[in-house]
Amino acid sequence: MQLALSTWQEIEAYLEHSTGIIIPIGSTEQHGPNGLIGTDAICPTRISAGIEEQADILIAPTINYGMAQHHMAFAGTVTLRPSTLIQLVTDVITSLQQHGFTHFYFINGHGGNIPPVTTAFCEIYHAAGKSVGPAPRCRLANWWRNDHITALAAELYGDAEGHHATVSEVALSYFAHPEAVKNVSMSPDIAPNGEIYDAADYRLKFPDGRIGSNPALATVADGERFYQLAVDALLADYKTFISGAS
Amino acid sequence: MQLALSTWQEIEAYLEHSTGIIIPIGSTEQHGPNGLIGTDAICPTRISAGIEEQADILIAPTINYGMAQHHMAFAGTVTLRPSTLIQLVTDVITSLQQHGFTHFYFINGHGGNIPPVTTAFCEIYHAAGKSVGPAPRCRLANWWRNDHITALAAELYGDAEGHHATVSEVALSYFAHPEAVKNVSMSPDIAPNGEIYDAADYRLKFPDGRIGSNPALATVADGERFYQLAVDALLADYKTFISGAS
Amino acid sequence: MQLALSTWQEIEAYLEHSTGIIIPIGSTEQHGPNGLIGTDAICPTRISAGIEEQADILIAPTINYGMAQHHMAFAGTVTLRPSTLIQLVTDVITSLQQHGFTHFYFINGHGGNIPPVTTAFCEIYHAAGKSVGPAPRCRLANWWRNDHITALAAELYGDAEGHHATVSEVALSYFAHPEAVKNVSMSPDIAPNGEIYDAADYRLKFPDGRIGSNPALATVADGERFYQLAVDALLADYKTFISGAS
Amino acid sequence: MQLALSTWQEIEAYLEHSTGIIIPIGSTEQHGPNGLIGTDAICPTRISAGIEEQADILIAPTINYGMAQHHMAFAGTVTLRPSTLIQLVTDVITSLQQHGFTHFYFINGHGGNIPPVTTAFCEIYHAAGKSVGPAPRCRLANWWRNDHITALAAELYGDAEGHHATVSEVALSYFAHPEAVKNVSMSPDIAPNGEIYDAADYRLKFPDGRIGSNPALATVADGERFYQLAVDALLADYKTFISGAS
Amino acid sequence: MQLALSTWQEIEAYLEHSTGIIIPIGSTEQHGPNGLIGTDAICPTRISAGIEEQADILIAPTINYGMAQHHMAFAGTVTLRPSTLIQLVTDVITSLQQHGFTHFYFINGHGGNIPPVTTAFCEIYHAAGKSVGPAPRCRLANWWRNDHITALAAELYGDAEGHHATVSEVALSYFAHPEAVKNVSMSPDIAPNGEIYDAADYRLKFPDGRIGSNPALATVADGERFYQLAVDALLADYKTFISGAS
Amino acid sequence: MQLALSTWQEIEAYLEHSTGIIIPIGSTEQHGPNGLIGTDAICPTRISAGIEEQADILIAPTINYGMAQHHMAFAGTVTLRPSTLIQLVTDVITSLQQHGFTHFYFINGHGGNIPPVTTAFCEIYHAAGKSVGPAPRCRLANWWRNDHITALAAELYGDAEGHHATVSEVALSYFAHPEAVKNVSMSPDIAPNGEIYDAADYRLKFPDGRIGSNPALATVADGERFYQLAVDALLADYKTFISGAS
Ligand code: NI
Ligand code: NI
Ligand code: NI
Ligand code: NI
Ligand code: NI
Ligand code: NI
Repeated sequence: MQLALSTWQEIEAYLEHSTGIIIPIGSTEQHGPNGLIGTDAICPTRISAGIEEQADILIAPTINYGMAQHHMAFAGTVTLRPSTLIQLVTDVITSLQQHGFTHFYFINGHGGNIPPVTTAFCEIYHAAGKSVGPAPRCRLANWWRNDHITALAAELYGDAEGHHATVSEVALSYFAHPEAVKNVSMSPDIAPNGEIYDAADYRLKFPDGRIGSNPALATVADGERFYQLAVDALLADYKTFISGAS
Repeated sequence: MQLALSTWQEIEAYLEHSTGIIIPIGSTEQHGPNGLIGTDAICPTRISAGIEEQADILIAPTINYGMAQHHMAFAGTVTLRPSTLIQLVTDVITSLQQHGFTHFYFINGHGGNIPPVTTAFCEIYHAAGKSVGPAPRCRLANWWRNDHITALAAELYGDAEGHHATVSEVALSYFAHPEAVKNVSMSPDIAPNGEIYDAADYRLKFPDGRIGSNPALATVADGERFYQLAVDALLADYKTFISGAS
Repeated sequence: MQLALSTWQEIEAYLEHSTGIIIPIGSTEQHGPNGLIGTDAICPTRISAGIEEQADILIAPTINYGMAQHHMAFAGTVTLRPSTLIQLVTDVITSLQQHGFTHFYFINGHGGNIPPVTTAFCEIYHAAGKSVGPAPRCRLANWWRNDHITALAAELYGDAEGHHATVSEVALSYFAHPEAVKNVSMSPDIAPNGEIYDAADYRLKFPDGRIGSNPALATVADGERFYQLAVDALLADYKTFISGAS
Repeated sequence: MQLALSTWQEIEAYLEHSTGIIIPIGSTEQHGPNGLIGTDAICPTRISAGIEEQADILIAPTINYGMAQHHMAFAGTVTLRPSTLIQLVTDVITSLQQHGFTHFYFINGHGGNIPPVTTAFCEIYHAAGKSVGPAPRCRLANWWRNDHITALAAELYGDAEGHHATVSEVALSYFAHPEAVKNVSMSPDIAPNGEIYDAADYRLKFPDGRIGSNPALATVADGERFYQLAVDALLADYKTFISGAS
Repeated sequence: MQLALSTWQEIEAYLEHSTGIIIPIGSTEQHGPNGLIGTDAICPTRISAGIEEQADILIAPTINYGMAQHHMAFAGTVTLRPSTLIQLVTDVITSLQQHGFTHFYFINGHGGNIPPVTTAFCEIYHAAGKSVGPAPRCRLANWWRNDHITALAAELYGDAEGHHATVSEVALSYFAHPEAVKNVSMSPDIAPNGEIYDAADYRLKFPDGRIGSNPALATVADGERFYQLAVDALLADYKTFISGAS
Repeated sequence: MQLALSTWQEIEAYLEHSTGIIIPIGSTEQHGPNGLIGTDAICPTRISAGIEEQADILIAPTINYGMAQHHMAFAGTVTLRPSTLIQLVTDVITSLQQHGFTHFYFINGHGGNIPPVTTAFCEIYHAAGKSVGPAPRCRLANWWRNDHITALAAELYGDAEGHHATVSEVALSYFAHPEAVKNVSMSPDIAPNGEIYDAADYRLKFPDGRIGSNPALATVADGERFYQLAVDALLADYKTFISGAS
């Protein structure tokens, strides 16, 4: 069930049997020579749609922009300031709380969102501690940080999976948008690894945007496998979350 | 050309022949008994996709959440605080400016976004006045405030077009998502009109969420007509904007 | 009755029979070659004083500074950032709410204030929705956007009324401050019309600050006619507002 | 010369011979049983007008609202949050800096404004230290903290001058607005003295709003004497300030 | 009793007999050729430790950074923006309020902290006025603004005590950290006096950082005398404060 | 070399051979029945002092308060809002940048500080990307997340090391403050493990504040071993950092 395609009366009805919601959150940032700028939003959106096919769970519209300051040396990247993203996530949760939602499950596609989104959770909890009403519960599910996903990526690509513009995320985005598959030659095959400081430092060390990956290996077929794994794993995790079991 | 489906190198190439971009912006809010909560994001997204089919213009990911505080008495509505939306729009423009974009054309689906978005434009202009670099140009195109659109709505529905959950926007959203068409009986046929103060006042005066409209009249076929008109009108307006002619 | 000339005990007494207040809000910005920089504050202040002569309504001190970023290319203009004006209006309303005021009627002299002031109203309503106590009611009355005023301006000046540094506002400010009437020659008689982007763009298109007007036509006598019309129209509107009739 | 009654061209001309400006700043707050709520704005406004009569100095419109949180237990008091006042003062200075003003002389009527206004000065200086352009110079002249004023008050009223709703400020406001003189009996003659914490504590200790004063002694004639002294003292201080001598 | 060296159960026990706490607050800023950059934090920290030796009073960890924008032209100075310090002090008080503390006694070492800290107190009071629960009480005790201290400084050093990098504060910091005593020659013996505007103006007028002082006179022995006086005076003042006697 | 015990001239001299600085950052929060509320500040402070003994590295005053919202259900905990901590860290870095420092090495004692501090780094980098001057380099060294430390803790305590109020941190704080060692009986020996949501949830699941640890095992002697390991490891890491090798 998609919030965007529902009426308010349908949401009222949904709230009678569940107060949980899934909110996909991504980023709009460079993903190397063959990765899509929308990768980090596309993956959570597609995974959420897969979950929706299997269970009566409400899916909110995707937050398409995230915190990507360190990618700003590459054209097309858009970044929110961390403070903006904190406010945005806070406003989304606060609005939904007002209608009776209590469990907020964010499916996240981008590592850079973790500090601001978890910070928003802290603020939500802190504010709730001073109010009456049911205590909110928030979780940030980073789809790629999952034993099933990392095991498959290791099996398929070994060291070529990498750390940004990874093969698995490019594959999943290709599965979601096969019309956007790119054939681009890259050199070296596997991008270098390392730590980054600022955006200029990033560009200097990783001139085509990839970190440690060879996304030329990404295929639609592999993407579907990652997608299925992610749907199953996150649906199970959501059910645990909503049941209050952890 | 969609930003989300491009690589950063493709954006670099685009910037060599154009520094303009279209950014759809909507809201996630109640639209009466048969209108979709995502209506205000769906319409600009679909219109932008139509423009993209006709011209080599870059389309950014949709901003799915807007300023909808006055709709908060209806389940499922999500609102950003005005300050959050101002920051969000400012961050999106500022990021794109850094890559060389100069013309920011927002296609908007929601009246409540107008004060915060135009405020963000003021702040962008004010900041730019103290910097070097090309002066940014911003426009907020409210797709429904258009002579062609209002003429067709008047012709088709007369007084039943209304002011919120209008027939035309519901029709356009149905054209975009025919799988979500709802058959819901409403009473009275045409909702009352009037001014609103706060969210409680809204609900009291307009208990099913509509203002002045009879969206039961909305059809996919009508929606397609509004869509075509909007694509043509906004594409023409974008071209004028980008040419600097006004 | 003026708040500034009252004691706190007199305000306590006033609150026993009315919880409404009028707050004049203006701007400090260029108004062309013969218009006063204080025009937008002077007009609401003078109209409010006229209302006070006719009815037992409390008038707050004038907010003399507004949002005028687009006039900053002309010497003497002072602008608040929109966020500052939003906070300022919010603080004024919030303070008065604490004493029991419920109806806040702003008489505004400047179009650029509309987005921030209505945004402040939204925030006030949103906060009130989460508190107990009587629901606040806010209205922004833009004195020049009034059928009586526009009809008289059309009758007297036709196309020369214009859009900034209009004949009617210059006339009204001359009526309020006849000691400040300026005799300045302008060329062309009627300033050009058009849209503006930023402050530099404004100065480029409208080099003497006027938009579409010939304020050389402004006289004290005309100003008095606009003043009388505005007092009557806004007093009537205030009474409707305070009665809760709309 | 008043900014509000000037044209932008007149300000351009003024800037050729002076880059200094006087900005009256007050508060809208209780001043005991016979003191005017506008006292703290009325006094600086009237003193500034007196200075203007004697010298070619530009006077800005009065900032009518200040920081008065501790007076909020008395009806009619309006307070800005300190952060709002800091932003407001910062915006006024920043705007005027852009036109070439360098010396900002605030004539203040209210002790509670001192921390936020001096804080704004610090921020202005700190920002200027990172920019090019002439260094700004700001001064906050608290009209009542002046040897001439305190000597006259001591001579006329001794201990009855007090600390809030003082005889001298009530007298000066009566001189400015003789139509608003109030005859109110007070008991005790001289209000108690003491320290305050919050607004409730203030009301408890000083139930009619006065601290240590007997403002029943205030007369228009005395007010004129304070006015003359203040005009002379502050004009001299302004000249020293603008000359850079201190 | 030091908060940092206690367990939470010990704090629970303390709260059964007292709801007061002392919070030392300093600054990290230049103090002339022989004064320590930490002087303003060292003095309140040492005085608080002395108080703790004499009475069962809880001492919080020191706030080591303050508002020192005007010292920024000297290496090693660190300044918080005033808004940061206001938030910091507000957060510290608000947290402690939640546990039941009601009396917040800040021992301050730096004049520049006074506006932001007292502003934070105003905000705390204002917020408390809208809540239930015991009213908070805050005091800012500036250790050097004390009749005993100023009398001793006058007796020992006369005019050489000065206004920044004073002999007394350097002496007290030497008593606290005898290992850091510096022997530095200064010229002139007594630094000049005067008012300052911004950081550049400060450095120009007071090239070695001192204002009006000859801190070469500072000794550990004198420092101990100031320390003893400050401990006695502030302990007595704290007792009055906590008793509610003023 | 300690910043607090230096003069500004000594800092100028230091900057001639190094532009790096170490900044200890902690928290003031419950650490179970025998752990000190200051543990997270005490450990980084003591480790920094140890580094200072071995190398000519400048140590800034400790930031004693951190982000501890989830510990607020235990008396004595003080938390900064995340936004406050972000501003605080930003101001400290920005101030030091102005004097020529380029490498900012934070030794951190508290996991809850990681999101806000790394967020501050992002903002610093983003701002620097728009300025001239040397690019800043920031690192957050969490002393307990270190192979040497975790290996020793595993060897000494196995599963009893835990996740909050760990044996290792309590031991290190005891080494730093042997006068504050507490003998407290705890039950069960090893506290439970689990995830937390808000502060109330924390208290419910972990009623004495510990997570997974048995800090009764902590000794001064063990603390010294952790201290020595941390000094060696962080000093080596600092040298790598400052050399630009990673
Ligand atoms: Ni990614
Ligand atoms: Ni709509
Ligand atoms: Ni106007
Ligand atoms: Ni006063
Ligand atoms: Ni000092
Ligand atoms: Ni810890």
